[in-house]
Amino acid sequence: MNDLALKAAENLSRIRESNPLVHNITNYVVMNYTANALLSLGASPVMAHAENEVEEMVSFAGALVLNIGTLSDPWIRAMITAGARARAMGTPVILDPVGSGATTLRTRTATRIIREAGVTLIRGNASEILSLQQEGSGTRGVDAVDTVADAANMASDLATELGVTIAITGPEDIVTDGTRTARILGGHPLMAKVTGTGCTATAIAGAFAAVDPDPFTAACSALAFFGLAGQRAGEQASAPGSFMIALLDALYTLTPEELKSECHIDVLPPAETAGETGKLSR
Amino acid sequence: MNDLALKAAENLSRIRESNPLVHNITNYVVMNYTANALLSLGASPVMAHAENEVEEMVSFAGALVLNIGTLSDPWIRAMITAGARARAMGTPVILDPVGSGATTLRTRTATRIIREAGVTLIRGNASEILSLQQEGSGTRGVDAVDTVADAANMASDLATELGVTIAITGPEDIVTDGTRTARILGGHPLMAKVTGTGCTATAIAGAFAAVDPDPFTAACSALAFFGLAGQRAGEQASAPGSFMIALLDALYTLTPEELKSECHIDVLPPAETAGETGKLSR
Amino acid sequence: MNDLALKAAENLSRIRESNPLVHNITNYVVMNYTANALLSLGASPVMAHAENEVEEMVSFAGALVLNIGTLSDPWIRAMITAGARARAMGTPVILDPVGSGATTLRTRTATRIIREAGVTLIRGNASEILSLQQEGSGTRGVDAVDTVADAANMASDLATELGVTIAITGPEDIVTDGTRTARILGGHPLMAKVTGTGCTATAIAGAFAAVDPDPFTAACSALAFFGLAGQRAGEQASAPGSFMIALLDALYTLTPEELKSECHIDVLPPAETAGETGKLSR
Repeated sequence: MNDLALKAAENLSRIRESNPLVHNITNYVVMNYTANALLSLGASPVMAHAENEVEEMVSFAGALVLNIGTLSDPWIRAMITAGARARAMGTPVILDPVGSGATTLRTRTATRIIREAGVTLIRGNASEILSLQQEGSGTRGVDAVDTVADAANMASDLATELGVTIAITGPEDIVTDGTRTARILGGHPLMAKVTGTGCTATAIAGAFAAVDPDPFTAACSALAFFGLAGQRAGEQASAPGSFMIALLDALYTLTPEELKSECHIDVLPPAETAGETGKLSR
Repeated sequence: MNDLALKAAENLSRIRESNPLVHNITNYVVMNYTANALLSLGASPVMAHAENEVEEMVSFAGALVLNIGTLSDPWIRAMITAGARARAMGTPVILDPVGSGATTLRTRTATRIIREAGVTLIRGNASEILSLQQEGSGTRGVDAVDTVADAANMASDLATELGVTIAITGPEDIVTDGTRTARILGGHPLMAKVTGTGCTATAIAGAFAAVDPDPFTAACSALAFFGLAGQRAGEQASAPGSFMIALLDALYTLTPEELKSECHIDVLPPAETAGETGKLSR
Repeated sequence: MNDLALKAAENLSRIRESNPLVHNITNYVVMNYTANALLSLGASPVMAHAENEVEEMVSFAGALVLNIGTLSDPWIRAMITAGARARAMGTPVILDPVGSGATTLRTRTATRIIREAGVTLIRGNASEILSLQQEGSGTRGVDAVDTVADAANMASDLATELGVTIAITGPEDIVTDGTRTARILGGHPLMAKVTGTGCTATAIAGAFAAVDPDPFTAACSALAFFGLAGQRAGEQASAPGSFMIALLDALYTLTPEELKSECHIDVLPPAETAGETGKLSR
């Protein structure tokens, strides 16, 4: 147990007490699962994407989650509009650059959102995150194919460059704000067999960011919580359908006390990062 | 057991025998769950939202369900177009004013649909329903925050004013057409932890309205059925993921006989309504 | 066991080894379930529908699945654009003409996609397939109502006319390319109580088409696999909610060896087709 584990437990308690409203502009595939995950966790999800509604909606929210998984031009405009309003209000903006690097539209949109929408935290897999640094990394759709032993160092540099916190998820998760870097263990291989578990990690990070003004500790808390929930689900289920239900159940039943004592968050000195991480992409 | 319980059982049998087609123009978050709920119940769901298709589609349907949970302008136009056609054909139109009161777009759209689309039944939580009476009630997104001991009396007045039946759901449900008022007990606290259970109640009301020309008895039947299914699911599951699956199962397994003997519908004299209901919002 | 059963097992092994990317432009209702089914099976789903993205996305894919379940004009344009690119690259295009025959928009769109998008395989229920031959067959939404003892013969003629492989699913499935015709047994009545099982069959056919250049054997393999998974799920669950979860689990746990020994694919001589099939529609 360390300070980050204590912080994770404290953040989870805050979510359960205050039920923060998380405004999601996200992809069609995961909307239902993401909303259910937020409800199970203790947050209040709202989905709204009309350009003529998002500014008003985000003004009530504790966090804004932007996810580019099923883009089209009206949705991009709504994301930019909502993000600008969130930035003006000091509301945290969390970006999930789904498939960035796979198509030009996604890479450009992710880059544009980071530039224009006041993003405070980005959560993606290694290839998505890498694509934000260097276009054309040739990722293969939503599934990462880059093996990047030095992803954590690159993420740290990118976090500094962009002035954001970055979370890379995979068999091991890395969170960095350029100054602090942490590694989070947990999760289960079946998480890669359920659509939208990455998107759900991002939405959960939104809920934690709504109660914790430090995006680094918010992201560490969120991924430690989600990773532990994934482990729990993996003890209940051995195939993807029952696993995805067990995962929702675990988000509901996991207590702050259990999170504090069972989660795995290691603070990494920047220099050791690359050597420790190995293959990050799924 | 009373006349409304007998009617509920009769209506359920009719749905199981005739599999009425329910045309939904609904939000992205709940489409899948709503469709599965209607199938489990015994109805035939269809989702279609293109402005150049909805008139033809609704002409085959036994009921039209309009849900404003994830609005945008083309969808609003489709709802108005479909509603006008349904009205012209005498097909019941059920509105779920999701988040009305939370944003201007939602409140205006709900009001416009009621005015232009021939709505016969409205199902919402207390704050959504109240927003239809008085704009700017300041609800907090989809989750109701108004505590309204007099919601039932207001709903009765509003039903009379708008010429519709109104159903307010919460820990206790109220159905009123301005003349008759009923209170329905049932459900389970986990229903608030599954996204779209309110939307599902509305869709189920659509299925009952397709077989029962009286919107008041149709709504009472639907909420009594759904409430009992929620109770059953709560006996099977103790966390949201497994609960939402158990709820679909209960919609399928619950028989008309069980509904008749186990549901809780009380006819309320208008004068007693306010005193009996207490906190309606979740 | 016959050559088609051996082929089905071989194709399943190939999917599990190569995780083919299946690009879906599909309806909102089934996106989540379809993506989860593809992941459970061993394929990699991607959903992308923006006209300015689909050409690039489909260029990475092993198959393109077009599903007209919730149409609107921008999506139609994207389907045509993606299909034209797939055709130019020799990538298999699978069409699910959801509700074709029910509305003019659907029938025309299905017909247009077949004409312009290089469709190699069509999967639908009997009335949807019949509508492609003859507009105005008056189907009742997504649910088939035509009883067509001679559907298989008509499908065979239609396959020849359109130069595609056609799969008709129902209590018995028929696959024909105009020269070869097969009948596949399997599945479970609860499949009709879960939304999108037809759409899922189509998406699974996309995964099989990505690893098998012969659309006829790919479709036979896919339906034999899905039918056996349905049977398995039916042994685990007796109501729609738990059935839909058990079905995802079965897609993951079913092995090529089990598929080879337990699936039911009969090669039918064209002349016998009509007499053998009986009522195809659900």
